Amino acid sequence: VLLDRLARILPAQALLVGDAMDACQTGEAVGAHRPRFVLRPGSTEEVAACLAACDAARQPLVVHGGRTGLSGAHRVLEGEGVLSLERMVGLGPVDPGTATVPASAGTTLQAVQEAADAAGFVFGVDIGARGTATIGGNVATNAGGIRVLRHGMFRAQVAGLEAVLADGSVLDGLRGLVKDNSGYDLNQLFIGSEGTLGVVTRVLLRLHPKPVAEANALVAVPSFRSAIDLMARLRAAVGEALSAIELLTPEVFDGAIDLLGQPRPVAARALFYVLAEVQAMRADDTSARFEACLMAALEDGEALDAALSQSPREFHALWALRHACGDVVRARGTAAVGGDLSLPIGRMEDFLRAARRSLFALDPATEFLVFGHLGDGNLHYVVATAEGPAAMERIHHLAALHGGSVSAEHGIGLDKKPWLHLTRSDAEIATMRRLKAALDPNAILNRGRIFDPIPVPAT
Amino acid sequence: VLLDRLARILPAQALLVGDAMDACQTGEAVGAHRPRFVLRPGSTEEVAACLAACDAARQPLVVHGGRTGLSGAHRVLEGEGVLSLERMVGLGPVDPGTATVPASAGTTLQAVQEAADAAGFVFGVDIGARGTATIGGNVATNAGGIRVLRHGMFRAQVAGLEAVLADGSVLDGLRGLVKDNSGYDLNQLFIGSEGTLGVVTRVLLRLHPKPVAEANALVAVPSFRSAIDLMARLRAAVGEALSAIELLTPEVFDGAIDLLGQPRPVAARALFYVLAEVQAMRADDTSARFEACLMAALEDGEALDAALSQSPREFHALWALRHACGDVVRARGTAAVGGDLSLPIGRMEDFLRAARRSLFALDPATEFLVFGHLGDGNLHYVVATAEGPAAMERIHHLAALHGGSVSAEHGIGLDKKPWLHLTRSDAEIATMRRLKAALDPNAILNRGRIFDPIPVPAT
Repeated sequence: VLLDRLARILPAQALLVGDAMDACQTGEAVGAHRPRFVLRPGSTEEVAACLAACDAARQPLVVHGGRTGLSGAHRVLEGEGVLSLERMVGLGPVDPGTATVPASAGTTLQAVQEAADAAGFVFGVDIGARGTATIGGNVATNAGGIRVLRHGMFRAQVAGLEAVLADGSVLDGLRGLVKDNSGYDLNQLFIGSEGTLGVVTRVLLRLHPKPVAEANALVAVPSFRSAIDLMARLRAAVGEALSAIELLTPEVFDGAIDLLGQPRPVAARALFYVLAEVQAMRADDTSARFEACLMAALEDGEALDAALSQSPREFHALWALRHACGDVVRARGTAAVGGDLSLPIGRMEDFLRAARRSLFALDPATEFLVFGHLGDGNLHYVVATAEGPAAMERIHHLAALHGGSVSAEHGIGLDKKPWLHLTRSDAEIATMRRLKAALDPNAILNRGRIFDPIPVPAT
Repeated sequence: VLLDRLARILPAQALLVGDAMDACQTGEAVGAHRPRFVLRPGSTEEVAACLAACDAARQPLVVHGGRTGLSGAHRVLEGEGVLSLERMVGLGPVDPGTATVPASAGTTLQAVQEAADAAGFVFGVDIGARGTATIGGNVATNAGGIRVLRHGMFRAQVAGLEAVLADGSVLDGLRGLVKDNSGYDLNQLFIGSEGTLGVVTRVLLRLHPKPVAEANALVAVPSFRSAIDLMARLRAAVGEALSAIELLTPEVFDGAIDLLGQPRPVAARALFYVLAEVQAMRADDTSARFEACLMAALEDGEALDAALSQSPREFHALWALRHACGDVVRARGTAAVGGDLSLPIGRMEDFLRAARRSLFALDPATEFLVFGHLGDGNLHYVVATAEGPAAMERIHHLAALHGGSVSAEHGIGLDKKPWLHLTRSDAEIATMRRLKAALDPNAILNRGRIFDPIPVPAT
């Protein structure tokens, strides 16, 4: 009956069942379970009608964007249908006056970046999965990445959005006014709630002016403290022009060098490597200050070696090393496990020491493939060990013990649920459940992601 | 019974009834109704216990900060008790590493500004009521003001907060991590929801580096189009250093001159006056660019006259003119009515023309005391007219017709409720009600603010 109703809502190619689902490979690609069906609506109205039909039939759905999430929220659970936004693709014109661009949810992040670039702007978020990850998924997971230091998380890029609730209600929050205190800011609810409160269908995105000059450098530092000191020096020297500051440990740095077949940008072997970037918003002395600051750090022994990019090619080669970190980890397969940890910057050093000690005690053969966004206190704390599950327990408990969060930017999804209670109180989790019950009372949307569903009493 | 329970929770001076309430003047100062009692808890625990007791007794409460709101949310309605945060005052130490400061909800905005200044930072929000308005109220109303262009609304200043739900649950969201995607960002719910979803008790506030130089200028421009053009020129010349750009119409400008007894900073009589400010974050040519840009505008006839401040005294005198606008309006008493309108900047000119025509048609004696935050599309659209109620209708309908909102920064409270439906859809208002019912099922917190309560069926 539900499938009949859905067939009346959607054109033929937009409702897939049985073998037809194999063409979009949803089942194999993302989880052990085969979905009951795949819905591929092409408009907000179709999304709303599909949701209303599924809600009436108590049919659970998993919402799919680019399926690049790193916490497993897109994995198909038993009995679920798939709602894919893949046909809702496209960008409106960039408005130079307000520096915004409207995007449909299924548009890739890269398409937004390219449209911004063509119009003389930049988009504020960049992540490795840019070619596949979609704007709807980026909003749903409040994506982060390498320029949070300069532009903030994805939440800060959203000037407005349209979302559909489980019952098919359409919330049009696309007005895009700079200020609007007319009642609750409902848009905030859908950012970072991982598709559990509604389906994001359209987004009005903020753009930023293009920098007139940029520079980066790879710096070998003798200790974590030196990395923190270098960040403070750079902030003092160039202020807000410091646009990224990333951290790599030797194992992942060497792995990236090997993977790319690049020459080593710095000769020194060090305990940590820092990739720093500055962006000047007008013709000024930012690059000179950046270079002078690095020179001073070298003279003081706070930096062991530094490679300052001298050309666009070198600039991109340094970033390529950083972007290869994810591939280094993936190449280790299931031997590599890790957390996406957020820590108070002032407690990162203690955490690193405690975690290293704890994991070596667990498995003396542990390899540390740690990298991340130093300026945000965000570590992708990856280790290769035969003691994966126990290591994950220790990593997450130690992060919480040091005032951190068990998810900085990857979300909770299905995979991080065991540790949510470490950083969110019972009262907070109970409040999340209340919001879920208020907006999706039949729990049809991404059920069981972030927290377990409240058991429905048998009737 | 409820009063007995409250008396066991609070010390003697913290629970006022009868004539004792006169000392804090809550009744007279803010509304026609005398509250049933005044609660003045001194800690989060006391707030939680008071709320749990009132919730159990279905006792509605109005939450009081500095009672400076401009939409009447703090007015006492029949049968309400007052929950005042006035005893929850104080700031923790400024943390220079994270550039944050913790504040209790009853702390004044000015106290935060002064603590930031003493520690070498600035706080990002400034409003006229700074000496009385409290941080809790600022959060609850998502306050705006004169530096939104540079630092965003109050939402952007909140690194973390603690809130208490109607049932006494305490949500501790004070961790203050740069990134935290571990479940829903509950803090966002309490910002701008005008005390209807919970009581904010503590806030971790973001601070900003102090500018090393600042300058401002008062510019007389021949048309609204020239004001917009001047803003675009300044943005092109100084970029993000443009920290404020305010608009005044002649009536309110002349009124401010008279009120302050200041000499006129510019000789020219013009249709609009613009107050522009730049802040340089390091020693550079920002001030020179600012001056050159104003000179070019004068030469091109886009500006008729300009007064560039040459000393701190002149700098503050120009701002004093802008800050006096509120007093000019208040001096007109009930003859002055107005809206706090948000408009797409590209449609402001059309709105101004349409509103002027419509209001003159209604009352040829209408005086226009319009001022506001040009860079944010935010007009405090005040008129003096004998046709107040009809003028308010026209103003708000025209704002909505031009894609605007009926509240930019003042909120909806009690006074703007008649126009909420002009800018928020039935689906949006229904969703707000769902959230209200989820977090405050007995509707004890600021009941009837923003939207009418859902009638409780008689039992």
